[in-house]
Amino acid sequence: MKTRVTIYNEGVHEQTKENVRAIYPNGIHGALKEALETDEVSVSCYTLDTVNEITDEVLDNTDVMLWWGHARHAMVPDEVAARVRDAVLKGMGIVFLHSGHHSKPFRLLMGTSCNLTWRENGDMERLWVVNPAHPITQGLGRYFELPHVETYGEPFGIPEPDEVLFIGWYSGGEVFRSGCTFHRGNGRIFYFQPGHETFPIFYDENVRLVIRNAVKWAKPIYRVPELLCPHVKKPGEEE
Amino acid sequence: MKTRVTIYNEGVHEQTKENVRAIYPNGIHGALKEALETDEVSVSCYTLDTVNEITDEVLDNTDVMLWWGHARHAMVPDEVAARVRDAVLKGMGIVFLHSGHHSKPFRLLMGTSCNLTWRENGDMERLWVVNPAHPITQGLGRYFELPHVETYGEPFGIPEPDEVLFIGWYSGGEVFRSGCTFHRGNGRIFYFQPGHETFPIFYDENVRLVIRNAVKWAKPIYRVPELLCPHVKKPGEEE
Amino acid sequence: MKTRVTIYNEGVHEQTKENVRAIYPNGIHGALKEALETDEVSVSCYTLDTVNEITDEVLDNTDVMLWWGHARHAMVPDEVAARVRDAVLKGMGIVFLHSGHHSKPFRLLMGTSCNLTWRENGDMERLWVVNPAHPITQGLGRYFELPHVETYGEPFGIPEPDEVLFIGWYSGGEVFRSGCTFHRGNGRIFYFQPGHETFPIFYDENVRLVIRNAVKWAKPIYRVPELLCPHVKKPGEEE
Amino acid sequence: MKTRVTIYNEGVHEQTKENVRAIYPNGIHGALKEALETDEVSVSCYTLDTVNEITDEVLDNTDVMLWWGHARHAMVPDEVAARVRDAVLKGMGIVFLHSGHHSKPFRLLMGTSCNLTWRENGDMERLWVVNPAHPITQGLGRYFELPHVETYGEPFGIPEPDEVLFIGWYSGGEVFRSGCTFHRGNGRIFYFQPGHETFPIFYDENVRLVIRNAVKWAKPIYRVPELLCPHVKKPGEEE
Repeated sequence: MKTRVTIYNEGVHEQTKENVRAIYPNGIHGALKEALETDEVSVSCYTLDTVNEITDEVLDNTDVMLWWGHARHAMVPDEVAARVRDAVLKGMGIVFLHSGHHSKPFRLLMGTSCNLTWRENGDMERLWVVNPAHPITQGLGRYFELPHVETYGEPFGIPEPDEVLFIGWYSGGEVFRSGCTFHRGNGRIFYFQPGHETFPIFYDENVRLVIRNAVKWAKPIYRVPELLCPHVKKPGEEE
Repeated sequence: MKTRVTIYNEGVHEQTKENVRAIYPNGIHGALKEALETDEVSVSCYTLDTVNEITDEVLDNTDVMLWWGHARHAMVPDEVAARVRDAVLKGMGIVFLHSGHHSKPFRLLMGTSCNLTWRENGDMERLWVVNPAHPITQGLGRYFELPHVETYGEPFGIPEPDEVLFIGWYSGGEVFRSGCTFHRGNGRIFYFQPGHETFPIFYDENVRLVIRNAVKWAKPIYRVPELLCPHVKKPGEEE
Repeated sequence: MKTRVTIYNEGVHEQTKENVRAIYPNGIHGALKEALETDEVSVSCYTLDTVNEITDEVLDNTDVMLWWGHARHAMVPDEVAARVRDAVLKGMGIVFLHSGHHSKPFRLLMGTSCNLTWRENGDMERLWVVNPAHPITQGLGRYFELPHVETYGEPFGIPEPDEVLFIGWYSGGEVFRSGCTFHRGNGRIFYFQPGHETFPIFYDENVRLVIRNAVKWAKPIYRVPELLCPHVKKPGEEE
Repeated sequence: MKTRVTIYNEGVHEQTKENVRAIYPNGIHGALKEALETDEVSVSCYTLDTVNEITDEVLDNTDVMLWWGHARHAMVPDEVAARVRDAVLKGMGIVFLHSGHHSKPFRLLMGTSCNLTWRENGDMERLWVVNPAHPITQGLGRYFELPHVETYGEPFGIPEPDEVLFIGWYSGGEVFRSGCTFHRGNGRIFYFQPGHETFPIFYDENVRLVIRNAVKWAKPIYRVPELLCPHVKKPGEEE
């Protein structure tokens, strides 16, 4: 059976900023879809305009979600954010990209501020592979570079990750835990730093490889319901 | 300077149930206050009736909070729960007791369902010390017993704890990670299973020792503000 | 390509104790081989008599190793133990069974005493599934039982595991982290408590399912050499 | 009672290399002793020449050990290394400095290769504080800089740390988890990257502050023996 990917991309900058539209004429979601879609992987896309269509039914039929948002986090309804969190707890995988660190579902899942420091300066980022045996880093060398990115800096207000896979080095002097895994409930979570909208980052072959690997890694092996406080019978009672 | 402890105890069962009032005539908070208050430790108490008085000012002047709730989690206003979470992220320590696992602040901090299975059967619980070198287990033997408790069972829907300090063995056949530590932002969190309202658990000397140890452990060494996404200057800009 | 499993079973008790031989006429390794071998999985076996034949070549051609030892840990040569550790660091998966907790390779990989407390009393063990979404617990219910086991007790002198998958409840009153995962270098490690030689535990269908699941989980996705302190070139030098 | 610190410094470079002697006329241990000794802290020093004098009695009377080694790791006797590991498991704190990452006690405690990549180029290192609420980072700003260091690079072959406190940014383009905590058995471990012998790093005020903080943090609260597989009595037997 195909891996079913659902992309949420805010999709606002592509409409309001000429330079972003020039890079992503079909939206960031369009570039991601193009990177992921194969005979093995089907992709559906939602933007802020259609965010309410991300129903439980859509999520129940999603193996892995990708989430990109930036300027309009607050406009995602609380119910949609809670729905996405609950789907992860039941087993759906999710990949948060770049400024998705401040999205409602990421903050709900982390329980922390998810704050960080940032600078828009067109820095070069060199992403070092900290864990070369992980499925998500498969096929990369010791590091790869992105010529221009938005700089993110520590401290990054997240819980201690299960695994730090990438640490980013920025030409301007910062460092960042640019690739982190978590698991919450039955679902797997990957946060990946690259993806600022004013640079063609989602066309980069290494970035695409990481995202493809992450989708494979985050796909649930099997789906179990989150336990809803089942009553444990007394000894002697029938279960 | 004294350690400043703030207790939230829902305080409903003590009013509505005769058998609970008989055990805790001064409320669960009264028993906890009695266990903690010394020349070194000052204690303030709040109940559901006064929950709105848990203001930012109160929290800024709290080193460690204790939280007990059960039947009325939903009646704690969202703003209060968010305030408590934010205080933890800034450095306040917090100890969640028993059914506090389903309280709003605990769920906000964990990001997961915090579900578990349970049974009210008056089981004996033997709490095994998994980490005998931890400050919270100092002064205990290899285990201690509580003759009657509410049984909690795995799976417990929490993120992987930093440390599992106690595993509970129940006479009816369950096990539970009965003492777990976490850190989120700048604050330390301890979850402790014992404390069902129909048993005199908060008079038990081992339980009191654990809670006193936990208060010492969770007290912030120093307070730093949670970083609010400070802008990183470009090289050359003044900071 | 087949998954290549290599079993080390000490194989002493089966020769020296009538009651063990009666249960495992073909050795514990024979029972494990029978449980694992399929069209997809090939199995090779070694015992203390042939332990020196576990060469680097054997390990380079092993996807996942199983290790059972008890009375003769000290007779496993240090070089063999170091070879096994190094193979794990390079990516080989390994499953340590029961008293393998005190084997040389496990202690080398953990860096701790790996001590525990124990009692031979024929207790019943109920193994609770703490993480129902993990590949290793796939296909199990909420718990399964073994009518007679050797009791192991906490504290278990291991580093904090990546994940606790099973907690054992013993009828005599102990608890134990009976299933734990770790990763070290590029390799995955699973420790599993059941397997005392005087009980027919390796014929139990749930135990066999767990071990089969663990082999699938521990199989390396791809093999990378452990980095041997490569010199990083100065900027300008050729790499 | 005073905090009792024991320093092991290999002490070879100070004898064989003029430039190192010029920086550390009293040895690296001399500089560290000077940084630590107060009315509250007593310091004893050992070098490779006296390494055999690091007996169990010395370790039993040590709260926190500092370990610096580089060229002569192999000459530290295995028994001394095992003794140090065992003291940590019993509760002694330990701080490994710089090239101590490849020392025998660190490798024994980690169970991994502890390999890394390195370059001697006089790079500037900027150490970012990843966890500003930790006792070890108390009193530092968001980062501090060392004008010339030996560059260390990822991947660093260690188990996932409990906490990453510092990430180093190097002017030549590398990153490194420059400050990491672990706990093993009853003891606390801190690894700290700075300290190359050809630069006056141990005179730097920020480095000294970190080491002083680490000594306070690693000091055992109380000492418990590592459990030596105590037999658990059968129910009914006397304990």
